Amino acid sequence: MDKKYDIGLIGLAVMGQNLVLNMSNHGFAVAVYNRTAGKTDEFKHTTAASDMIGAAYTIPNFIKMLKKPRKVMLMVKAGAPVDDVISELVPYLEAGDIIIDGGNSFFMDTQRRYSELADKQIRFIGMGVSGGEEGALNGPSLMPGGDLSAYEEVATIYRTIAAQVMDGPCCAYIGQGGAGHYVKMVHNGIEYGDMQLISEAYYIMKTVLGLTAAEMYQVFDEWNQGELNSYLIEITRDIFLKQDEKTGRPLLEMILDKAGQKGTGKWTSQSALDLGVPVPTITEAVFARCMSSYKDERIAASTILTGPEIHYTGDRKKLIQAIHDALYASKICSYAQGFALLKAASAEYKWDLNYGDMALLWRGGCIIRAQFLDRIKAAFVKNAKLTNLMMDPFFQDILSRMQDNWRLVTTICKQQGIPAPAFSASLDYYDSYRQPVLSANMIQAQRDYFGAHTYERTDTKGIFHTQWLEELMHKD
Amino acid sequence: MDKKYDIGLIGLAVMGQNLVLNMSNHGFAVAVYNRTAGKTDEFKHTTAASDMIGAAYTIPNFIKMLKKPRKVMLMVKAGAPVDDVISELVPYLEAGDIIIDGGNSFFMDTQRRYSELADKQIRFIGMGVSGGEEGALNGPSLMPGGDLSAYEEVATIYRTIAAQVMDGPCCAYIGQGGAGHYVKMVHNGIEYGDMQLISEAYYIMKTVLGLTAAEMYQVFDEWNQGELNSYLIEITRDIFLKQDEKTGRPLLEMILDKAGQKGTGKWTSQSALDLGVPVPTITEAVFARCMSSYKDERIAASTILTGPEIHYTGDRKKLIQAIHDALYASKICSYAQGFALLKAASAEYKWDLNYGDMALLWRGGCIIRAQFLDRIKAAFVKNAKLTNLMMDPFFQDILSRMQDNWRLVTTICKQQGIPAPAFSASLDYYDSYRQPVLSANMIQAQRDYFGAHTYERTDTKGIFHTQWLEELMHKD
Repeated sequence: MDKKYDIGLIGLAVMGQNLVLNMSNHGFAVAVYNRTAGKTDEFKHTTAASDMIGAAYTIPNFIKMLKKPRKVMLMVKAGAPVDDVISELVPYLEAGDIIIDGGNSFFMDTQRRYSELADKQIRFIGMGVSGGEEGALNGPSLMPGGDLSAYEEVATIYRTIAAQVMDGPCCAYIGQGGAGHYVKMVHNGIEYGDMQLISEAYYIMKTVLGLTAAEMYQVFDEWNQGELNSYLIEITRDIFLKQDEKTGRPLLEMILDKAGQKGTGKWTSQSALDLGVPVPTITEAVFARCMSSYKDERIAASTILTGPEIHYTGDRKKLIQAIHDALYASKICSYAQGFALLKAASAEYKWDLNYGDMALLWRGGCIIRAQFLDRIKAAFVKNAKLTNLMMDPFFQDILSRMQDNWRLVTTICKQQGIPAPAFSASLDYYDSYRQPVLSANMIQAQRDYFGAHTYERTDTKGIFHTQWLEELMHKD
Repeated sequence: MDKKYDIGLIGLAVMGQNLVLNMSNHGFAVAVYNRTAGKTDEFKHTTAASDMIGAAYTIPNFIKMLKKPRKVMLMVKAGAPVDDVISELVPYLEAGDIIIDGGNSFFMDTQRRYSELADKQIRFIGMGVSGGEEGALNGPSLMPGGDLSAYEEVATIYRTIAAQVMDGPCCAYIGQGGAGHYVKMVHNGIEYGDMQLISEAYYIMKTVLGLTAAEMYQVFDEWNQGELNSYLIEITRDIFLKQDEKTGRPLLEMILDKAGQKGTGKWTSQSALDLGVPVPTITEAVFARCMSSYKDERIAASTILTGPEIHYTGDRKKLIQAIHDALYASKICSYAQGFALLKAASAEYKWDLNYGDMALLWRGGCIIRAQFLDRIKAAFVKNAKLTNLMMDPFFQDILSRMQDNWRLVTTICKQQGIPAPAFSASLDYYDSYRQPVLSANMIQAQRDYFGAHTYERTDTKGIFHTQWLEELMHKD
């Protein structure tokens, strides 16, 4: 076996297969290995019958097939399987070899693996890969973090296979340790937010206006030609068009309203809670998926818990425009939360993230790709220290112009009993952020009252405690 | 040194000191130890000059002072200090001795310590202690979990010093492992919710109605005599009365609106995210504290981000009543979320929690103590398998009656740009839970479109995948 391959890939599920095809289609020779040999055979003998792809059936043979320093990409299930494969690999690797984890690993696991492998002189890259199956095949968004020298050795491969946009490939080095997986995690959190906001727009049109799937196709088609232009708006439009073969009705109506999740949205909220960064839109999106899973409880509750009648007699076109504006303004808040979280994480973990780069990485290939991201990039290019995306003049202007409609839509939802938690939480985020004084003085007073937690004052620096009640014995 | 003490306590911060005094006042002999000897001296020679309290200055001497099996209670900072003290203690303990951790430990740490100590035949209790300084001294709410046989040995002490309510002491065995600290954590999450909801009620009265502190004292005094009667409403009322000595103005106005937090609220949200249980009210309360800490950014934003003018020309008394109703209905949702979380945790960790007991434990001593908890207890006594608190006829009726006012208040807030994220998230929780069909069919369609994540159907069982676009190469 003389031929040496540019890179090896372990894990031949759909994402892994498509990345192999993407690399080989671009002229890179790829060795593949899968725990189940049958899958390797099937892949090699059907989809991947190319000289550029070589199959191995043992780890030692797989490693022997690779050019040095060896580059081994893992596309296995996040969690213990990644550690297992790394343990199997390490005995056959040499100092300077490179492992790239392209799965949806939790960033703290990536931080740990980076350190453990550095001790063994193995260079580790944790790389976020977005774009689903189609992106993996035709150009994903790639978010590599970890060892910079290792990234430089694989940059040509990844920058070649990544999605290409006007400004270049959607692949750039993110930062040390788990930075790549962290950025991918926040990308997914933002994706949860986008999806929930779109689903709320759909829900309001359906329940308040009674629009048909065909009518909503028209609405989303129009929206996709405007400021909301994005992959998710586009596929939403197409979803309305799909007919169910069995019933002849729109397939969407036949799909059960129980949403699944794989953890990255949840991790985004959990990390935000750890770092003290409010991300209410993203978190409401995660909770909405949780709530959707309580289908049986909801059906039972629907006959017990009362609500108002839904009726709307106003102008229908105006309400559709108002929903558009509410969606757009809420989306800006959701991205503002995501970028504020990246900023806090960058400070906490010393990653020195470049926010304009993030926006560019997400410009193509990934699920949240949108024209909109050019504006985010522009905002950070203009002011790298922008404290919050909402403060950029472009976004500030949109929020200002769209807020009347945003308030109208959330008001109708509250009045008519229509849940729109992400629209609503986004508006509260906006309205909280622009308050010089919030209600937390009350919370500080309470905490000092019952727990002597102290407080600060508005008129002078220092830490203060008040003896709210005189009779507390321990104060005597 | 012949006298043997009933129990020993390590950690003489205020909470520890007050628990010692509480125990000795009730006739239990307590040995005390503190890392800093000066603190022990000060405590022994001033506050605690009683035969019932003995001071030790080394761990071995401290252990020698205790009756067997020894009972050692820790009141040290949560985290590494607890592990450190346990490591110091273990060499001097015998099989069957008991350690009780009364700090705010993270429940997973408690689970781990329980197992590690069981291997060494040391019995471990993780006990939630609520009630702040005053409760510790005069009767806290105690939530012990862990080793049941150990609990039985200390039950007399703890049931004696706990707060006493009509139904008995606010102390009952919770469950195995970290159950006690888990329940305390959820208690604190609910406490975050209660405090945020009260602060929003205050904020709306202040900003929309321009009520003075004296007027708000009257409102809260009235509320405290009705269904909202509770410790937190009572201290809120008193807070309005407190004058600042320096300025002569209400002290509340001089307190900076930056709220602190110590982690238990955050943990509640994080655990809920792990268990897939929506707790939006509690989480918005945590995020509101995070948002409050961005004081400088908010001041900057207040001159850039626009909002509507606040004006209200309606009936003032009616709006105050509406705020009352919004607070009460939101509070029910917040508790419903907390109890749903306990239920999920009980199933996940096999704790077999008794929800009626929880309500009783919290009836006295702790920060969230309220008449209201009798109703919760009654609901679970009547139906131990109640799926959600909102489904109990008593609470269902309140939600039904108060929802018009609840919708009115949240509508006014949305229209006038007043952040009330916890009021609003609570209403969305109610409105989501009572929907037989939510918008998650759209999310499932999107997930299946871009990631082949599959979906279920409304008309038949099974897992389905649709080829939304024909041209996906890997599907050929």
